[in-house]
Amino acid sequence: MSKKNIGATLALYPCPIIVVGAMVNGKPTWTLVAHAGTMAHSHLMVSLVQAHYINQGIRENKKLSVNVVDESWLKDADRMGTISGNKVDKSNAFAWTMGENGAPLIDEAKVSIECEVDGNYELEHFDHFICKILATYAEESVLNEKGKIDYHTFKPVLFEFPTYEYFVTGEKVGDCAKMNQ
Amino acid sequence: MSKKNIGATLALYPCPIIVVGAMVNGKPTWTLVAHAGTMAHSHLMVSLVQAHYINQGIRENKKLSVNVVDESWLKDADRMGTISGNKVDKSNAFAWTMGENGAPLIDEAKVSIECEVDGNYELEHFDHFICKILATYAEESVLNEKGKIDYHTFKPVLFEFPTYEYFVTGEKVGDCAKMNQ
Repeated sequence: MSKKNIGATLALYPCPIIVVGAMVNGKPTWTLVAHAGTMAHSHLMVSLVQAHYINQGIRENKKLSVNVVDESWLKDADRMGTISGNKVDKSNAFAWTMGENGAPLIDEAKVSIECEVDGNYELEHFDHFICKILATYAEESVLNEKGKIDYHTFKPVLFEFPTYEYFVTGEKVGDCAKMNQ
Repeated sequence: MSKKNIGATLALYPCPIIVVGAMVNGKPTWTLVAHAGTMAHSHLMVSLVQAHYINQGIRENKKLSVNVVDESWLKDADRMGTISGNKVDKSNAFAWTMGENGAPLIDEAKVSIECEVDGNYELEHFDHFICKILATYAEESVLNEKGKIDYHTFKPVLFEFPTYEYFVTGEKVGDCAKMNQ
């Protein structure tokens, strides 16, 4: 093997960057999250340091939104990772709409997922909210003729931890499960 | 809000596609996985249908590797998602090297992460293995001068579920936490 052991380093990248939204004390708040993942075909896992302001709202209301970031609002999304909800009221950071299930959705986001928390795997001062997907909202402009999200049109921004850079989704290189036919 | 509710649809994409490796009955086996995520700064979550052959090895040995796919071996990786370890011996599918901790690593993969399972969040006939990162192996060719993975050089392949396509990592569009300075 020609690989070198570079230590126990985070390397599952690049991954989609999201802004998580939730209601805290009757107002929306937002935070930038890089570490999340799909579970089964019904849930999302969102990894959030417990000290974040937003966590108390998620614990209380059990509702959150996952707003997928594209380049059109990347700068605003990035800001949500640099200011603390414990110090700053972020309720006016975005134009937003209440989802059908009680989670605030960012209007600028072309794709937003509304979730209900039904578990929390706590690990090393992080909450890992296990979230059932209740509804997925998408702009018509990013849907194909079958009503599915078209990643030729919608280009999410991706994050990597090693050098803290953002990359955009690139070009298509294959069809899953068809490359060996 | 200009978005339309398209139902409770998976939409946290595109995400890195990986081949998970583990020993089963003394031989390596492999499977293609799209749904995984970083937890805290120390762990990965890997979502795998319980019927997969590989799950028994992961449960027994508690060791697995996460091999990040790039275009150079995408076709071979894709094949691991189309054949079942319950029916076919996959032990010769890749040249591999045993990791320092007992998980088989794919030689072709430029980045492989060796993990130990320390939890399982079972949900809807899926195992969600909570894996502590023990070691990360990377080819020198994908490391920058500081020894970190360089995603300008290393371009992982990304998957999206709605239309089952693969995309490659695109170009840099920003520096995290610096866009509002």
